[in-house]
Amino acid sequence: MNSFSIGVDLGGTNLRIAAVSEQGHLMEKVTLGTRVALGKDHVIHEMCDAIHLLTAKYRNTASLQGIGIGVPGIIDMKTGTLRESPNLPGWAESPVQAQIERLLSTRVILENDANVAALGEKWLGAGRDVDDMIMLTLGTGVGGGIVLGGRIWHGMTGMAGEFGHMTVEPEGPPCGCGNRGCVEQYASATAVVRMAKEAIASGRAPELASAANSDPEFSAKAVYNLAIQGDEEARRIFGRVGRALGITIANLVNAFNLPMYVIGGGVSSAWQAFAPFIFEELRQRSLVYAATAPSSLQPGDHRATGQIAADGPTRTIVTLALLGSDAGLYGAAQLPMTPGRQ
Amino acid sequence: MNSFSIGVDLGGTNLRIAAVSEQGHLMEKVTLGTRVALGKDHVIHEMCDAIHLLTAKYRNTASLQGIGIGVPGIIDMKTGTLRESPNLPGWAESPVQAQIERLLSTRVILENDANVAALGEKWLGAGRDVDDMIMLTLGTGVGGGIVLGGRIWHGMTGMAGEFGHMTVEPEGPPCGCGNRGCVEQYASATAVVRMAKEAIASGRAPELASAANSDPEFSAKAVYNLAIQGDEEARRIFGRVGRALGITIANLVNAFNLPMYVIGGGVSSAWQAFAPFIFEELRQRSLVYAATAPSSLQPGDHRATGQIAADGPTRTIVTLALLGSDAGLYGAAQLPMTPGRQ
Repeated sequence: MNSFSIGVDLGGTNLRIAAVSEQGHLMEKVTLGTRVALGKDHVIHEMCDAIHLLTAKYRNTASLQGIGIGVPGIIDMKTGTLRESPNLPGWAESPVQAQIERLLSTRVILENDANVAALGEKWLGAGRDVDDMIMLTLGTGVGGGIVLGGRIWHGMTGMAGEFGHMTVEPEGPPCGCGNRGCVEQYASATAVVRMAKEAIASGRAPELASAANSDPEFSAKAVYNLAIQGDEEARRIFGRVGRALGITIANLVNAFNLPMYVIGGGVSSAWQAFAPFIFEELRQRSLVYAATAPSSLQPGDHRATGQIAADGPTRTIVTLALLGSDAGLYGAAQLPMTPGRQ
Repeated sequence: MNSFSIGVDLGGTNLRIAAVSEQGHLMEKVTLGTRVALGKDHVIHEMCDAIHLLTAKYRNTASLQGIGIGVPGIIDMKTGTLRESPNLPGWAESPVQAQIERLLSTRVILENDANVAALGEKWLGAGRDVDDMIMLTLGTGVGGGIVLGGRIWHGMTGMAGEFGHMTVEPEGPPCGCGNRGCVEQYASATAVVRMAKEAIASGRAPELASAANSDPEFSAKAVYNLAIQGDEEARRIFGRVGRALGITIANLVNAFNLPMYVIGGGVSSAWQAFAPFIFEELRQRSLVYAATAPSSLQPGDHRATGQIAADGPTRTIVTLALLGSDAGLYGAAQLPMTPGRQ
């Protein structure tokens, strides 16, 4: 009998649930809204009902391995407790894993959302040919995940991969974390909008000003649209996105020397506008990158290269994520399939 | 029969060889000069003669596990080739490991000197109660080593741990590696002397100027001596050392979330002068440190704390190395003892 598992992406806005086969085939995907206002118990019951329906449909033809759930926030992996989660108000210090296991009588693994995205890209996306990789997820904030030897690297207390709060400019803009000049202050959707508003306020960005005036939900996407139309100020903003990411990735390459660094999340759709600046910074700032860069290739394009030799990779690849918003769903589904997992 | 191994610290100036028991007891240490000018073959023969004498003395009472050699430079771990080494001119691209194995008919493991220092501190020094740690070695440059699960983490091509070239100030002083504002430009002995000379040139450091004038070998140690005597400019220089280290360690804590970060090397003897600035930066710049700092303790003092609980460590310790210049010797000796090593 084939086996499958359930992957859940439990965000502050959307709740998505997928049945995924052990080969990584998406069997079915269900999308619900996360009705945060109705409280934790309501959301968990609604989620468990949907999971129950989905597993009932497939359990005659395949055996259920378990349920993996990606959530935004800090998780105590030993107890399955959600310690804090800004996007799920009222969920702090909840033993979420135990509650769901009781409701479903099935093994449940809770994991940070940026970590499951990294695991999904490792399993079925950009990182499928490497064992070790880092992923940066550029969304409202900047999240990160580390995969070593095919598994999520949690660090001592489950907080490894907080790349979004690595310092780019010691005296840069203040960040909610208490630091200044975090990469999140340059490379998140929030930062793109802030930089656009700063440019508008300075009076030197008429196109951005008119876009912001005509669009009450002026977003990073609107800034990107102007950048690809050639607007200088919008392009300059994505230059700052790329330079900040380049400094951060150069630091990561110098520290970890991994074969792959994957960039995903909503802002990564502006790859064309910021990626050249990443590679420029990387070449100048990382002696490890300089020694291992895939020199004869298009930056970011590793698939046609055969760079990954039989005795292991020897080139540092920095590339766009492939799975979009499904990375987290696949990664969550993979959690119960990992052999020897505690 | 007990077993022992030979650890070698092959530097550009000194060649030190130690016989170390499997329990980590130093049986005997031999110090020679590295006569680099006489060429690679001469140095290797002299080293092998000394190793031969040392092993002959002990092999009736203990069995030799092998020989570990720490060298400055980049090593191809698969072939045991020294790819480049600025401190050992003429040794680039040498199959050093094979040559020594032929001469001694014993298993030889070549390893980067900063990596063996980290392994030594893990085995017998500051990191002996943790499995995962990072070490920064502040010498002429700034070296680094990563130990994960009790073993050196090499990364893809053996270049992991190049912390010295992580960016602190994107527009800071140029570094030989091609980057600007590397931590090595603030926290190495070379950088301390450069900053002192800059202060002297600015005319605002009369004490430093008179120390430099009276001492033809004006060094980081001389700057430290003035700092502990209260000289403002000398203290300001060690403030910059500490702040740059603090930013770098904050970035490492946010990325790796390890239980321990150890600072060694010659400049670390100025710990009193720079450490307070490290902790100030760490508290402000790392949310991971803030969540895991040993709050009720003297910073840096972890030994009396019992912080390392039975189910693993939960606190982030930043502390001074304990083994001084012997860390590399012990770490090199430990290399052949690591079970399952390739």
